[in-house]
Amino acid sequence: MRCEVVAIGTELLLGQIVDTNSSWIGEQLALIGIDSHFQVKVGDNFERMAMTIRHALERSDAVICCGGLGPTQDDITREVIAAIMGVELHRDEAIVARIRQMFESRGRVMADNNRRQADIPAGATPIAQMPGTAPGLVCPIGDKVIYAVPGVPHEMRTMMQGTILADLQQRSGETAVIRSRVLRTWGDSESGLAERLADRIDHLDTQGNPTLAFQASGMEGIKVRITAKATDETAVDSIITAEERVIRSLLGDVIFGVDEESMETVVLNLLGERGLTLAVAEGLTGGVLAARLSEIDHGMSVFRGSAIDSNMVTVEQSGAEGAAVAAARVRRDFGTDVGLAVVAAQHRDEQPAGTVFMNLVIGEAQHAQSVALPGDRNRFRNYAVINVLNFLRKTLTGAAGAKGQ
Amino acid sequence: MRCEVVAIGTELLLGQIVDTNSSWIGEQLALIGIDSHFQVKVGDNFERMAMTIRHALERSDAVICCGGLGPTQDDITREVIAAIMGVELHRDEAIVARIRQMFESRGRVMADNNRRQADIPAGATPIAQMPGTAPGLVCPIGDKVIYAVPGVPHEMRTMMQGTILADLQQRSGETAVIRSRVLRTWGDSESGLAERLADRIDHLDTQGNPTLAFQASGMEGIKVRITAKATDETAVDSIITAEERVIRSLLGDVIFGVDEESMETVVLNLLGERGLTLAVAEGLTGGVLAARLSEIDHGMSVFRGSAIDSNMVTVEQSGAEGAAVAAARVRRDFGTDVGLAVVAAQHRDEQPAGTVFMNLVIGEAQHAQSVALPGDRNRFRNYAVINVLNFLRKTLTGAAGAKGQ
Repeated sequence: MRCEVVAIGTELLLGQIVDTNSSWIGEQLALIGIDSHFQVKVGDNFERMAMTIRHALERSDAVICCGGLGPTQDDITREVIAAIMGVELHRDEAIVARIRQMFESRGRVMADNNRRQADIPAGATPIAQMPGTAPGLVCPIGDKVIYAVPGVPHEMRTMMQGTILADLQQRSGETAVIRSRVLRTWGDSESGLAERLADRIDHLDTQGNPTLAFQASGMEGIKVRITAKATDETAVDSIITAEERVIRSLLGDVIFGVDEESMETVVLNLLGERGLTLAVAEGLTGGVLAARLSEIDHGMSVFRGSAIDSNMVTVEQSGAEGAAVAAARVRRDFGTDVGLAVVAAQHRDEQPAGTVFMNLVIGEAQHAQSVALPGDRNRFRNYAVINVLNFLRKTLTGAAGAKGQ
Repeated sequence: MRCEVVAIGTELLLGQIVDTNSSWIGEQLALIGIDSHFQVKVGDNFERMAMTIRHALERSDAVICCGGLGPTQDDITREVIAAIMGVELHRDEAIVARIRQMFESRGRVMADNNRRQADIPAGATPIAQMPGTAPGLVCPIGDKVIYAVPGVPHEMRTMMQGTILADLQQRSGETAVIRSRVLRTWGDSESGLAERLADRIDHLDTQGNPTLAFQASGMEGIKVRITAKATDETAVDSIITAEERVIRSLLGDVIFGVDEESMETVVLNLLGERGLTLAVAEGLTGGVLAARLSEIDHGMSVFRGSAIDSNMVTVEQSGAEGAAVAAARVRRDFGTDVGLAVVAAQHRDEQPAGTVFMNLVIGEAQHAQSVALPGDRNRFRNYAVINVLNFLRKTLTGAAGAKGQ
């Protein structure tokens, strides 16, 4: 069973709106085991829309058209689908009444051109869920099908979840359950991970289930996604859990989290579990570290505060000394268990440009590390933030290298 | 001249990554007057990639392929383009050396499979800009062309701006100069702005050049884009400048900046021009305000520091009092001309949930304002940041309302 997505709207091609609908639909299709090999964006143009939808229908079993169901003259998805089906549009008066009532319930009067939204190709069925003024459509063509949904995300989602996904799964005859789990890694390149997992990937390739895929997420590291298929939830979960164990044994502590866990979530959890509070000194990262921590720890129960100061590292100190002084100072000033500082090398240092000094005080212990980082100023400081979070993570889990100064 | 965009990567179809690259490219193409009628997403599959690129090349003059240039076995854009061109790949040792050097400068060793990234189809030219390990490619096919760029957004953008847009414009033979200027507004809705500009838009519609377009940019306000076409830079600039004057007279001080100017850039410039330094106290925004200011003011010559503290507002104080105390305190502690505080209402306050208190001390003058904001926690605090920056902007330009407490 193959299903394509056609996103309709000139504003999508012009970049005025990012097409998040196709991505969401693609994710939902994957989760029920339906392949989506192509997703196309096309403008509000009759010939190009017709060509695109016809082409999609030739190579796939189903097409989801997203957008072009509004009341204006630009909105021609209904007309294009009727032409492809080779049928006429007829106005559904029950839907006209429903649209009118929707306006009236908001104290407004239905404009005349909203009637166009009730035009249905002969043989098509309106989708029962209708959260806005645009009805969705199920349009059978032989043993294939075109679905039409509005471009408004929540309207589209309501129709997908209420009607289309179930209809697709029924048409596909697929009863398998497909699930994924993402292992988040930091500290190795995609090619480095690929080499460490090469034998395992070869082994899985011959077997076919589960599968592994890499996904770069910029400075936040590389995701390793395990996807498995089985007859039920329990079986699919046990395949994924067994595979996770194998991957963890191969990759070790470069894996910092699972699925939606970010580095700061993991670090805050590690601190919270140990009953530790944290204060940070940002001589370099200018609030980015604090912003990330406080976005997770809303109540600031673990992360107690940050000092951001242009004078943090004086020219009398080296970067390493400055970091040590700052870490101790914020720990004292905020009265926390842990003080963490991240500063850059100053001119007086003999360090190469781009060196970042990190220092961590936990009780009596002081941990220091420095790292040379690439990038322009803003990439540099974002890199510094993820580095210092990872330094804290590894120190807390006992995996950090150097201890003491 | 028509140019299609083909975004490559199974992760795009699966919704693991939203394809923002095509949107950005579509916008850039529109700005130089090049039509983009279709944008397609396709997975990492040889036959489907070849089919999609061939199909795009049939109906358009140029195709930009985005993604699939990485080092892993999945990354096959190079191979597919070579097949379409009917040529072999050859390894460019100069590029191998460049990739190796990139790894070494970060203290890392190049993995063996990174060599694959230096494979170039015969007849293709590597793009000079190479911010990452993946070279971009210009691949002529008869009088048409395929460009290949990495999927990493900043790498793609660097290559588009450094090479591809100029190459496309030259190929298109377009000699008219098309330029845009964006007026950035904050504090009015899109429909509010449309009403204030309705007569002007009607007038421009009959004239055809320049044109106006609105573009929402979330919490950062609404952009009003002026686009004009003329025979040379001087002529196009004078059309745009004249139109900007008209728009400014209609919209007044809701316009805070031009083009890429952000609210924080504008505020830091206003402070810098007046020779004022700034310290902030963030009882609510947890470092987001500091991060935005220090991202612009790298050297922290104007923005001198921030205090982020979970204890900033005690339950003994109302939000307004807490903000006043905090603004005065950071001004004193950091020794700056201006102290700015943003805090949220505490439980003990009689304020509705979601009220933000802002206080600004400049010399002897103290300015206070409070505002009720919508949104979940993270939207709320980002809204607070843009509000407090706008409060500072309007106070500095003398346009703020209330003065004193």
